[in-house]
Parts: sequence; C-alpha cells; structure tokens
Amino acid sequence: MPRFKITIEYDGRPYSGWQRQDHAPSVQGAIEAAIKKLVGADTTLHAAGRTDAGVHALGQVAHFDTAKQWRPDQVQDALNYHLGDHPVSILKAEAVDAEFHARFDAVERSYLYRILPRRARLALDRGRVWRVPCKIDVEAMHAAAQTLVGEHDFTTFRDTQCQAKSPVRRLEDIRVITAADEVRIHVRARSFLHKQVRSIAGTLTEVGRGNRMVEDVKKALDARDRKACGSVAPPDGLYLLSVSY
Amino acid sequence: MPRFKITIEYDGRPYSGWQRQDHAPSVQGAIEAAIKKLVGADTTLHAAGRTDAGVHALGQVAHFDTAKQWRPDQVQDALNYHLGDHPVSILKAEAVDAEFHARFDAVERSYLYRILPRRARLALDRGRVWRVPCKIDVEAMHAAAQTLVGEHDFTTFRDTQCQAKSPVRRLEDIRVITAADEVRIHVRARSFLHKQVRSIAGTLTEVGRGNRMVEDVKKALDARDRKACGSVAPPDGLYLLSVSY
Repeated sequence: MPRFKITIEYDGRPYSGWQRQDHAPSVQGAIEAAIKKLVGADTTLHAAGRTDAGVHALGQVAHFDTAKQWRPDQVQDALNYHLGDHPVSILKAEAVDAEFHARFDAVERSYLYRILPRRARLALDRGRVWRVPCKIDVEAMHAAAQTLVGEHDFTTFRDTQCQAKSPVRRLEDIRVITAADEVRIHVRARSFLHKQVRSIAGTLTEVGRGNRMVEDVKKALDARDRKACGSVAPPDGLYLLSVSY
Repeated sequence: MPRFKITIEYDGRPYSGWQRQDHAPSVQGAIEAAIKKLVGADTTLHAAGRTDAGVHALGQVAHFDTAKQWRPDQVQDALNYHLGDHPVSILKAEAVDAEFHARFDAVERSYLYRILPRRARLALDRGRVWRVPCKIDVEAMHAAAQTLVGEHDFTTFRDTQCQAKSPVRRLEDIRVITAADEVRIHVRARSFLHKQVRSIAGTLTEVGRGNRMVEDVKKALDARDRKACGSVAPPDGLYLLSVSY
C-alpha cells in the first residue's frame, strides 16, 4: 500500500489543536477531509506530534496510506487545492516505504517560542507571538535554560494531564536569542512532554523579567513538582519547526 | 491647541486603505473613531502617507489636535483600548508642538517589500508576503535596482491615477537582500509616487525570475512610459516601515 509523508505548515489560531475532534475544527480533521476528496475514502493521518489549540507549525510531519499510487506532486497540489480557505499548507509530499512512521520514527523535534517585549498591543502578529510588556534579560534566560539541558525528570515542566508514562526526557539543546525586536527560544529533543515547551518558556520568562533568579530554574527542576513551575506561556508564540528522521 | 504625534502598526488586510471612506473600513476611520471615544469630538487625523488597500504598516505616523491636554501615555493606552478588535496598534504617542505636520514635515519614508519564493501556498503569512512560485536571482534584482537610485522621472513606475504634480522623485537607497527564506526589498526616499514601490517591486521580480535582463530596468525607467513597467506587485508584501522628521 503506498504511503506518503507530508510536511505541513499551519496557523494554529482557528483550531482546537492538531487532533481530530467531533465538534471542533482541527488541523488533522481539515487535512483528512482534503485527503478524502483526493482518494475518495476515509483515511487516517498520523502526525509526529499533536500540537495544542493555537499552536502553530512550520514543519509538522505526518503520514497516510492510499489504495492506489499517486505522484507526490499530485498529492501536494491536490491537498493544497482541497484545503481551500484553511490556513494550512502542504509544503512537501514524499513517497515513503510502508515501514515509515511519522511519530515512532522521529529522532528529533525542534520547537521555536517567540516573545515580543513591548508595551503596545499587537496588530500584525496577534496570536503569533507572546507579548510581554516589559524588558527581558535574554542572557539570564539563556543561562537559566542551560540547567535544563540533558536527561532529567521534567515533572515540574509537564501538564498535570500529560499522558506520557515517564516524566524523563532528554533536552538536546536550548538557546535563548535576540532576533529583530524579539526574544526567541529554540529547543530540540527526541520528544517532549505535554506543555513542556510552554512550561519552560513561561518559567524562563519569569527569569527574564527579573521575577526569578537564574538558579531558581534548577531548583524548580529538582523539585519534580508541578507547583514549582512558572506560569505556562500562551500557545501564541509556539511553533513546531521541524522533525528529523 | 495640544497636538499629538502617534506611531502606528497595522495589518492592512481588512481595510480599503489608510484613507477614510464613507462605505468601506479604513485605518484612518478606525483610529478617528477611537479618538472620538477618547476626546468626545470629531477629530481629523493627518498621516505621513496614505497606504493602499491591503498594505501594512510597522511605523506609520500621524498627528491630530485635541481641545484639552492629555498625557501621551493616556492617549496611547486609551486609543489602543478603544480600537478594540481592529488589528491596529498605537506604538507610541508624543506631545508635539502646534507646527508639527506628519505629512509635510516628513523628510524620509522607508518601505519594505517581502517576497517568498516557494511553490506551496501560504498558511501562516497569507496576505503578509508575496509568494512567487519559482527561484529568484536576488543579486540580479539588487543590481537592476541600483539603476533607480537618485533623482529620476518615475513616470514608468507610477500608477496612471497618481495625483502628484511631478513624476520626479529622488530614491535615496534601494537594497534587495535575502533574509531567512525571503527576498526583501528595502527602499528609502523623501516621498513616493502612487504605487511606486509595488511597481518597482514587480518589475525587479521579473528580473529575479529571469523574465527581464538587469539592463531592461534602466530602459524601462528611461522610457518614461507606464507601459514599460512590469506587473505591479500585490499589496500583500508591502510595509510602511518608518517615517523620519
């Protein structure tokens, strides 16, 4: 059975998240409807990661099977056509072998979190960046972030509803940089816990605002206690950048 | 009479342009309505430049007068509050003297034009960048652009409806650069003709796509003939960046 890998960009604002739901718009639902228009049959799409409501993607990856063979460029163009007004774009479609799995074969996921320190409300980037109305110490955030690199029990930084069996994850890299007027957090790991990036972004931003000390982040991690986490950053600034296989 | 200078960011997509109109939403109309809610009287806003439908601003400048004195931060916060759902933000408000004029005192305007060369449709930046589905030779565009620097008769590059008395303008600087995946045109002048930046962007992009030679842009300029202009680039990619006084 032919299997296709697709790379997807989407604006998370109109969706209840990646995952298909009966009574709410989802990215998965929008693309599965487009696939049905192409192939004429109900088809399940498997994604590398389920993004939450309002979270964006520049490089989500998913796979699906079809009964007949299609050219990858036909798949890309037809899905983009059938997606109509949805702010979802198929950036690439590739034929892959039947063993490929978008979720289980992923060896690294990369996320970006965008913060805009400014007083005035947003006009152009509303819902696309987290506005923080005060100065931010980027170097302090970066220093605090380094204490999270490596393998740790991230109980402090995962949602209480997180379904993962283990709270242990290995953060490969986390960088806090200045880009144009923004503060950007880049983070890479094999996989993440539920709301882990937003929990980390929120806690680091408290350091950036001077409400926590750099060393408090290590203490919060060591506490292995959700109550030690800072305010979870909103979905607005979060982008699934890429998935490696 | 107190006069205020405001610096404004807006998303041009929902508007028929800057200029107030009776039966269409405009940026000027939205801000004037917010001023009326603050000061309780009809007030005219004078802008540095009238942007067209769909054109964005990161740093438009305008001024208006009030009967009583207000603190600039009160003006900023109140206007942002009264703007409600409009994708318009007052970035700054300043008290200026009664001789200041946002349009006539401007000594330089700076625009950005964003082009994204890619095949797949847009999801996140729909209406915010011009997607061109092919490779672009940025160096050829930059070289061609240099022939436009300085004082010239820009008849070729202005709209046939342009109201300016003279087609002569002086381009101070034009740069075509690569930034992330995009091609960006940065251009500065004391003032511009109607659709001048989009006419230049469209013509330069024909050079970038290989549909015109670098030297054809000089020939088009010298022709002083609107028919020598390339396709006018869409408003999507155009941003009024800043105005200097």
